[in-house]
Amino acid sequence: MTANSHPARPVILGQNQYGKAENRVVKITRDGDTHHIRDLNVSVALSGDMDAVHYSGSNSNVLPTDTTKNTVFAFAKEHGIESPEAFGIELARHFVESQEPIHRARIRIEEYAWERLAASDASSRFIGADEVRHSFVRKGQETRVAQITYDGEEFEVLTGLKDLTVMNTTASEFWGYVKDKYTTLQEDYDRILATSVSSWWRHTWTGGEQRPPAWDKSYAEARKHMLHAFVETYSLSLQQTLYQMGSRVIENRAEIDEIRFSMPNKHHFRLDLEPFGLKNDAADGAVYFAADRPYGLIEATVLRDGAEARIPVDMTNL
Amino acid sequence: MTANSHPARPVILGQNQYGKAENRVVKITRDGDTHHIRDLNVSVALSGDMDAVHYSGSNSNVLPTDTTKNTVFAFAKEHGIESPEAFGIELARHFVESQEPIHRARIRIEEYAWERLAASDASSRFIGADEVRHSFVRKGQETRVAQITYDGEEFEVLTGLKDLTVMNTTASEFWGYVKDKYTTLQEDYDRILATSVSSWWRHTWTGGEQRPPAWDKSYAEARKHMLHAFVETYSLSLQQTLYQMGSRVIENRAEIDEIRFSMPNKHHFRLDLEPFGLKNDAADGAVYFAADRPYGLIEATVLRDGAEARIPVDMTNL
Amino acid sequence: MTANSHPARPVILGQNQYGKAENRVVKITRDGDTHHIRDLNVSVALSGDMDAVHYSGSNSNVLPTDTTKNTVFAFAKEHGIESPEAFGIELARHFVESQEPIHRARIRIEEYAWERLAASDASSRFIGADEVRHSFVRKGQETRVAQITYDGEEFEVLTGLKDLTVMNTTASEFWGYVKDKYTTLQEDYDRILATSVSSWWRHTWTGGEQRPPAWDKSYAEARKHMLHAFVETYSLSLQQTLYQMGSRVIENRAEIDEIRFSMPNKHHFRLDLEPFGLKNDAADGAVYFAADRPYGLIEATVLRDGAEARIPVDMTNL
Amino acid sequence: MTANSHPARPVILGQNQYGKAENRVVKITRDGDTHHIRDLNVSVALSGDMDAVHYSGSNSNVLPTDTTKNTVFAFAKEHGIESPEAFGIELARHFVESQEPIHRARIRIEEYAWERLAASDASSRFIGADEVRHSFVRKGQETRVAQITYDGEEFEVLTGLKDLTVMNTTASEFWGYVKDKYTTLQEDYDRILATSVSSWWRHTWTGGEQRPPAWDKSYAEARKHMLHAFVETYSLSLQQTLYQMGSRVIENRAEIDEIRFSMPNKHHFRLDLEPFGLKNDAADGAVYFAADRPYGLIEATVLRDGAEARIPVDMTNL
Repeated sequence: MTANSHPARPVILGQNQYGKAENRVVKITRDGDTHHIRDLNVSVALSGDMDAVHYSGSNSNVLPTDTTKNTVFAFAKEHGIESPEAFGIELARHFVESQEPIHRARIRIEEYAWERLAASDASSRFIGADEVRHSFVRKGQETRVAQITYDGEEFEVLTGLKDLTVMNTTASEFWGYVKDKYTTLQEDYDRILATSVSSWWRHTWTGGEQRPPAWDKSYAEARKHMLHAFVETYSLSLQQTLYQMGSRVIENRAEIDEIRFSMPNKHHFRLDLEPFGLKNDAADGAVYFAADRPYGLIEATVLRDGAEARIPVDMTNL
Repeated sequence: MTANSHPARPVILGQNQYGKAENRVVKITRDGDTHHIRDLNVSVALSGDMDAVHYSGSNSNVLPTDTTKNTVFAFAKEHGIESPEAFGIELARHFVESQEPIHRARIRIEEYAWERLAASDASSRFIGADEVRHSFVRKGQETRVAQITYDGEEFEVLTGLKDLTVMNTTASEFWGYVKDKYTTLQEDYDRILATSVSSWWRHTWTGGEQRPPAWDKSYAEARKHMLHAFVETYSLSLQQTLYQMGSRVIENRAEIDEIRFSMPNKHHFRLDLEPFGLKNDAADGAVYFAADRPYGLIEATVLRDGAEARIPVDMTNL
Repeated sequence: MTANSHPARPVILGQNQYGKAENRVVKITRDGDTHHIRDLNVSVALSGDMDAVHYSGSNSNVLPTDTTKNTVFAFAKEHGIESPEAFGIELARHFVESQEPIHRARIRIEEYAWERLAASDASSRFIGADEVRHSFVRKGQETRVAQITYDGEEFEVLTGLKDLTVMNTTASEFWGYVKDKYTTLQEDYDRILATSVSSWWRHTWTGGEQRPPAWDKSYAEARKHMLHAFVETYSLSLQQTLYQMGSRVIENRAEIDEIRFSMPNKHHFRLDLEPFGLKNDAADGAVYFAADRPYGLIEATVLRDGAEARIPVDMTNL
Repeated sequence: MTANSHPARPVILGQNQYGKAENRVVKITRDGDTHHIRDLNVSVALSGDMDAVHYSGSNSNVLPTDTTKNTVFAFAKEHGIESPEAFGIELARHFVESQEPIHRARIRIEEYAWERLAASDASSRFIGADEVRHSFVRKGQETRVAQITYDGEEFEVLTGLKDLTVMNTTASEFWGYVKDKYTTLQEDYDRILATSVSSWWRHTWTGGEQRPPAWDKSYAEARKHMLHAFVETYSLSLQQTLYQMGSRVIENRAEIDEIRFSMPNKHHFRLDLEPFGLKNDAADGAVYFAADRPYGLIEATVLRDGAEARIPVDMTNL
């Protein structure tokens, strides 16, 4: 029975999905004494023939969210975690192909990066450098994210990052803008430009016979190119910087067709210290107030000419 | 110049928007000695002819985000804040109708509720009850939200709430679900059902000659009906409860056609206390562990038969 | 072996404590169809003969933190949760009296309040009002806190609250302050006074033959008196308001000797709207910008004359 | 008039302090085209002759918190920010020595670290490596903290860090502990040891003719030694690891006499995957569930034999 076929139902079910969110799975791989970490937060969302559970509470088509949790942990052991994307692809395929009522699976993943910690020189001499290969510190910079969707025919793989906070302390101006009756802002020819980058990009790979990208390398390269553009753009607006970051990624990475950014303008206001007899010019090295709220918020999609825009506007909601 | 007309640009601009986010505006209204508070967090997002600022950094079409901030505060004084929705409608209309390059404005608002504080009986006798009408405590329950979008022709008004945490301590079961090789969950015939409701609903009102709803009353009624359904549903699944909550709102409120929920299943696990010689049956009043992560996450749209589904799936992202 | 007796140890152990923090325990009590909730977050910290575990890693005196967690949940079933304070007293006594190496136990508790949800009138008629007595909404206002310490001889019971946000929209001035070369602030004769109260108060009860306070009533009364003083004080400084709040509690509650507050001045800046041709006087109902950071922070202890000040300054760290 | 001299006051004022908290100050220093950032969050707390403002609301001894804010920003320009400690010393001295009613100043500082961003190779060739020396990414690892207190005679300087998350994926055991009737934990001979380090340490320097430490170098060295001990300790308990970390710092840094840690045991539970036919032994590389709450919490002070313990227990409250 589908919603639409019911003769008398005045209120019907629309898009729906369910699953276990935020499964915190850590997989250690041991290569002799050298250990490796993958540290993920995995969320499962399944869709399909789910009218009955909504209309009557019958769970006969419902794989419990607890089971989806178990599957995440079991798959981490059975298949390992080569990359967030590869892990998500396995999971999405499993749910759609093993459960008839499930027609679509969406796996969202956050990954937290860890760096190796060194031993002291004295210790290294004593115990041998190879003996301490199991100590790590959380890197703490951006969080890598991925979303893998599978409908039984095609995959869609989005990769991204959030909380990558960057700053140019000069080479940024803002002037020549519209002035209406509510405009009081002064033009600025030497300002700080700082933002916390949230971004999602879409891979052209959709499964089948195509060879998938080397996901970890693709991530590192996309991140690198976007940062290069941030560094090298003399900025007249944050929008201009955003477009440069996006186009640099797409021009350099054939496996990526579309990228969306949400970039808050983390305002650093240069203070007026004249009341205290102090100049505070940017050129001399200034003091700034780092503001929290409100903040400018610049959001845009950048895509390869001819590509379809598929990343939802609301994915990058702050 | 639009993106598509440029002969040689291999990477083009897609959907984009900008503005000042999280303007924390508080408006006090004095009615004699009786004061009233509206306490909002207002985010502005504007779209239109914005190719130039992205491609070249020319700000000639850009109303600064700082100006959009000033406008929010000035409008609060000029027009007052009758409700989040009415305030957002005024703002959205202003930006689109006063700035030729702006074709679309989206205003997002959070509202924080305050309750009156009483004076002591002694004080009331002494100073007169009417003299202390300016003291408030933040209610601290759900946050009311609104999103108003205007494209120069039609308005779309979404209202909603978040962080409304509710619990039924019985009258909830979960059994009869699919069991695969990863299923270990035991069936439960008397469990706690708790969730933190996030919801958005869409009003049929789109502007023009239509009389707008009484926004505050509509909010209170929608909230009330959804809670009544939560209380009165004997639940066989959280999906069933969700559908009942949505259909109750739509059946009772003609001005609302569509509603979307995102409801985490805030698991309360009944502990096995047998190792300590203790029974822990639900019927006797049990002890539960309130878990944080992972959590089941149930999301769905419920809509009037024949209505168009327009609330984006990702608006209720947790 | 104690730290001091070791002949050659150049670096010694000082104050130390350990235990399981943030045990989220929910206890339901059923009184026929009427259910009651106590929803706590319980943290255990134990001290005693713990030199060996620090110096050599010997756990022979260590009751595992996992055991302290189990004890919290088992006690909730065995003894129920009459109040946070009564529950903490039982736990603290247990750890010190049942484990020889444990000389001191400190139990910290947060409590989250729930209110009953009503059914609809139609439903009440149909199912009977008594049949829906198991539905709740989280109140969401302040969090009640308690700290119970027991050293085998005496108890110390602190009760408190945090995140109780209050506002007077008038009846607050600020003038007559010191002016130095860095002072630019203008005097204000009609300002908003808003704060988020964090407070701890100390009960005179220390155990033994003394009859303990009725903890729930004592909490409700202390909270009520502090709010009455907030409402009824015409404020010339936040410090004055703080002292009034504290002295009102101590004057009215004989079981409380000392109280400490940490009260951020949640600034609401009245905006200058003159550039837009608008007056924004407080007397007419003004528009304010609610600022996040920085904020004034006022902290003080208030105590009964002759009582000992024992609440640590850093307990109310924000 | 002091509290105690008042003949009739039944409720008196105890310890109190006030000031502006969380001043977010960013200072850029330009050395030709090479820029440097110091990014601080500065909180001021002043104490002294403050009875009147509490008892009567007279502000005649009160330097406004707004002035303390202005002073922070002006000092950043006038004196620069050589290190958090040096900056805090200047501020604390200023408040006590310039305002007669102020007898004690406590400055708390958080510092956020930034790293340089590289330009692309192509760009470096084109624009010259020296031309891009103003681009940074926030490091995002631990937050460095400092607290400087001055009473007009002596300084006390505490330095510390928080949110430094570290993990050993082996070389950690836990067994041989006390077992009571609530103990169910299994012994473990190969477990993950992970924690998020919060720490404060006290410098022997108290001002006067003493030469102050090189604060930045001292911080880097203390951090390094504590991490070396974490890496090199084969751990039988988190307490043992904590003591090793503390003693390593004190043994290697003569300028530090005392150090306090608060270290949550970030549990990584090795899952039982037997129900799915999978072994999950640590030796083969296992899958773990990274838990949030509850968590073990280990806190201790470690100090040079003969030194006075002065760091408050509650400074490291989580």
